[in-house]
Amino acid sequence: MAASAGPEIERLIALLAKLPGLGPRSARRAALALLKRREQLLVPLAAALAETAEKVVSCSVCGTPDTRDPCAICSDPARDNGLICVVEEAGALWAMERSGAFRGKYHVLGGLLSALDGVGPDALRVSELVGRVRGGGVREVVLALPATVDGQTTAHYLADRIAGDGLEITSLARGVPVGGDLDWLDDGTIVQALRARRPA
Amino acid sequence: MAASAGPEIERLIALLAKLPGLGPRSARRAALALLKRREQLLVPLAAALAETAEKVVSCSVCGTPDTRDPCAICSDPARDNGLICVVEEAGALWAMERSGAFRGKYHVLGGLLSALDGVGPDALRVSELVGRVRGGGVREVVLALPATVDGQTTAHYLADRIAGDGLEITSLARGVPVGGDLDWLDDGTIVQALRARRPA
Repeated sequence: MAASAGPEIERLIALLAKLPGLGPRSARRAALALLKRREQLLVPLAAALAETAEKVVSCSVCGTPDTRDPCAICSDPARDNGLICVVEEAGALWAMERSGAFRGKYHVLGGLLSALDGVGPDALRVSELVGRVRGGGVREVVLALPATVDGQTTAHYLADRIAGDGLEITSLARGVPVGGDLDWLDDGTIVQALRARRPA
Repeated sequence: MAASAGPEIERLIALLAKLPGLGPRSARRAALALLKRREQLLVPLAAALAETAEKVVSCSVCGTPDTRDPCAICSDPARDNGLICVVEEAGALWAMERSGAFRGKYHVLGGLLSALDGVGPDALRVSELVGRVRGGGVREVVLALPATVDGQTTAHYLADRIAGDGLEITSLARGVPVGGDLDWLDDGTIVQALRARRPA
């Protein structure tokens, strides 16, 4: 593809195309939208990215990206220190927070164990989790990891690593999602939902 | 949705969600990817946007975004000054350039006439086009506008405005796209492709 848009714009398009959800064509459309809406979009986005790069750090306790260290959640005295929810990435943490159902603390692993991709425990924030649990005061660790092979491998590994006297290790329930039509569910979910059936 | 990711990150997500092709959910994923790949993606993208905002201007002749004014195409002596291709946006210009089939100059309108959206000729670079044509030396204007109602309305309007002695006004051929299966084509395209049929 010729660099018909000039080197600066082509470089911008190449970077935009690395964002998940944007491919080469949609990155080109996005660049065009940015050029058309210079003051409303291009300049504010450049500033927001620069501010994020400058101010946002990983919380040294839980690994969440935030401008504070410890992050807002870790330094919230109203939240339960005895309850730690382990998530793969900050995106899962944000989803949990949106649900409003969890009032403990978090631990962001930064990925999942993967033999295929060569991701071992040292590439994740595993020793930090072990340290927090061994530090005392933790009653329960909720492993909120994806229901995939890598997610479940990681959950089993973590359960082994942190197991100790009086520590409860749990994981999220499996079942039919709210609004979920059985027609569209995979067999594995139906099997697990049936096994875990409850009185109506 | 709670501002669970902190105000800086939420602002970044809100700006990313304004890009075409990204919605609220995918903007969140994109922000997460940026935070994970700080040095490889976040910092370079911030810099590329800032550089684009600072350096890229609209060419005063044709309206293309470029770092030079006149732009690289307008100042290319090897290109035919007597041939002007009118496009809606720079995206169409880039597509024409990728095809490598056009060696004239361009004129970027910056939109299409739209009664519904209240876009009149003054909102577009129409008077600039009239000025270029009246300036002399132009043999042919190719109206490469979309095959939509607004596109064709705009093409008819422009043809009226620029019509003059010895000026040829053309538009792109209609027909079956390369690789196009008749099964998937709308009736309008088939009708036009049949009317414009050529000896095989």
